[in-house]
Amino acid sequence: MRTVNAIAAPSATEPLAPTTIERRDVGPKDVLIEIRYAGICHSDIHTVRGEWGPVPYPLVVGHEIVGVVAEVGAEVTRHAVGDRVGVGCMVNSCRECDNCRAGEEQYCLNGNTGTYAATDRDGTVTQGGYSTHVVVDEDFVLRVPEAIPYEGAAPLLCAGITTYSPLAHWGAGPGKKVAVVGLGGLGHMAVKIAHAMGAEVTVLSQTLSKKDDGLRLGADHYYATGDPATFEVLENRFDLIVNTVSAVVDLDAYLSLLTLDGTMVNVGAPPEALPVHVFTLFGNRRSLAGSSIGGIRETQEMLDFCAEHGLAADVEVIGADAVNEAYERVLRSDVRYRFVIDVPTLA
Amino acid sequence: MRTVNAIAAPSATEPLAPTTIERRDVGPKDVLIEIRYAGICHSDIHTVRGEWGPVPYPLVVGHEIVGVVAEVGAEVTRHAVGDRVGVGCMVNSCRECDNCRAGEEQYCLNGNTGTYAATDRDGTVTQGGYSTHVVVDEDFVLRVPEAIPYEGAAPLLCAGITTYSPLAHWGAGPGKKVAVVGLGGLGHMAVKIAHAMGAEVTVLSQTLSKKDDGLRLGADHYYATGDPATFEVLENRFDLIVNTVSAVVDLDAYLSLLTLDGTMVNVGAPPEALPVHVFTLFGNRRSLAGSSIGGIRETQEMLDFCAEHGLAADVEVIGADAVNEAYERVLRSDVRYRFVIDVPTLA
Repeated sequence: MRTVNAIAAPSATEPLAPTTIERRDVGPKDVLIEIRYAGICHSDIHTVRGEWGPVPYPLVVGHEIVGVVAEVGAEVTRHAVGDRVGVGCMVNSCRECDNCRAGEEQYCLNGNTGTYAATDRDGTVTQGGYSTHVVVDEDFVLRVPEAIPYEGAAPLLCAGITTYSPLAHWGAGPGKKVAVVGLGGLGHMAVKIAHAMGAEVTVLSQTLSKKDDGLRLGADHYYATGDPATFEVLENRFDLIVNTVSAVVDLDAYLSLLTLDGTMVNVGAPPEALPVHVFTLFGNRRSLAGSSIGGIRETQEMLDFCAEHGLAADVEVIGADAVNEAYERVLRSDVRYRFVIDVPTLA
Repeated sequence: MRTVNAIAAPSATEPLAPTTIERRDVGPKDVLIEIRYAGICHSDIHTVRGEWGPVPYPLVVGHEIVGVVAEVGAEVTRHAVGDRVGVGCMVNSCRECDNCRAGEEQYCLNGNTGTYAATDRDGTVTQGGYSTHVVVDEDFVLRVPEAIPYEGAAPLLCAGITTYSPLAHWGAGPGKKVAVVGLGGLGHMAVKIAHAMGAEVTVLSQTLSKKDDGLRLGADHYYATGDPATFEVLENRFDLIVNTVSAVVDLDAYLSLLTLDGTMVNVGAPPEALPVHVFTLFGNRRSLAGSSIGGIRETQEMLDFCAEHGLAADVEVIGADAVNEAYERVLRSDVRYRFVIDVPTLA
């Protein structure tokens, strides 16, 4: 066991505070990572505040992790000391179910092991990336290509793969019209990736306040959803809509923007049920889908794709002492487009 | 113009009653059909009772029409006098939009022309198949193969294509597990067709009362949705769920039965909005879709498929004077599995 510095949530209502946690000894298949940066995902906030269910406090969150391999177990073959690596939203899965065998561990039928707040194989609670070190099975550790700066790479491990996976799965590419709903942490990566894939990209945001940014990130068009005319002008337009918004939206209104055989895929996660009319789905044979992060193989593919296309997240680097303030700013959508914690400031 | 016998709904609340209606003269591209049988679809009842919106009374419904070609226009090339033919839910479309050009006239972006209660190109209101004759543009007239009995062919024009189209689109076939929700007019055709396509078919019905029928029609398994254990046993099971139920169902419960990349497609049409949780869609990357009848090319394909596989609807033939009673029985689900009107009884 090894004691490492971290910032943890003591409860649903208290601010995060410095503490120490224990990391397990490096097993034969494990990799010890010295963490450089950890992104702040909206999921972290939902989780620590108990909005997605009961939480095992104290809890260290963070599932957008990049760092350097500091030690490897005797049987590790995929990583070596000094390698640039990353860890995303899961650190294990059953490896035996149909979905794991298909390389879609995120959909593990026995439940993948989340990077934080999950029960690990040894019965302990997993603790996330707002800490100086983490020990992870090598199969769930990704290679971070040299071409991607560390700080811009961290958010790729959640925001990047969460948007890359549905864009790839539903065939974003040349000749396809893709809409991205919401220009936050997920949305700004969806725009960059869809553009790099060759799709015609439209941002649908509440207002035009981030229009210049959206076009700079790669969008071809930008519309305000606060303007009802938007939904008339864009009717039957898109092959794919990636909805990154975690709040309740009018699904029927967005679905009506889909062309023949179009899909609206949700990656934002409102806890409430959303009403949908079957008649809206009848038109153009539309689909409403969900997508959750991506498998390990696909996450590596995403990192390699980003390196090849010069993509990284737009980030604002903060010290560990600024996390609580950053949370407030995330809730106000006052970040362009992802906070990443400079983790060595915890040391 | 030609005056023909029909049974029409005088209003939303009165019974259907015998009357006469006018049919247009046979134009150069038109086919005059002497109707033999017309199926009774639940949509007919929803429509005449005003449950789907305002209705131009008096109205003749019926969009599962089979008969014999009695006359053809000078430019007709696809049909000849004496041919066995059918007409389904639409009698025209714009022919110019992307969807029409793709052969998916049912999704015509300018609105296809419904077989009844729609405004035809000449400004008149279309009148359906509960009548002795109908005049239809040849492009919207289907060939009914000799191998299919007339009375069993009529319901194929709506119930058949409405289930064939999503089964074909989402790849029902060998190795695929397909569930059919509801064993009524649509459901019984879905079972027959999915079985003929080679899929493993499961019926999900409220009770086991029609189990013997379901297995006879081609189902491999039959479960009662009234038993909560059904939803546990079948979790993550199906590649495709075809929901034929027009009432509100618990979408999350059914969606949880889908395996990786599975789709639940709705062909039943409740007017109410149905609540769905995005988290249910996240699991297994599930999709919720809608499908509306099929294009003309695909409808012909369906008829040829049914002929090849010896499929037809299970019907109960009634005289024209029994339509109101039949409506009451449809509403009580007391029909196995489709009423068809012996239209010459109107003559």
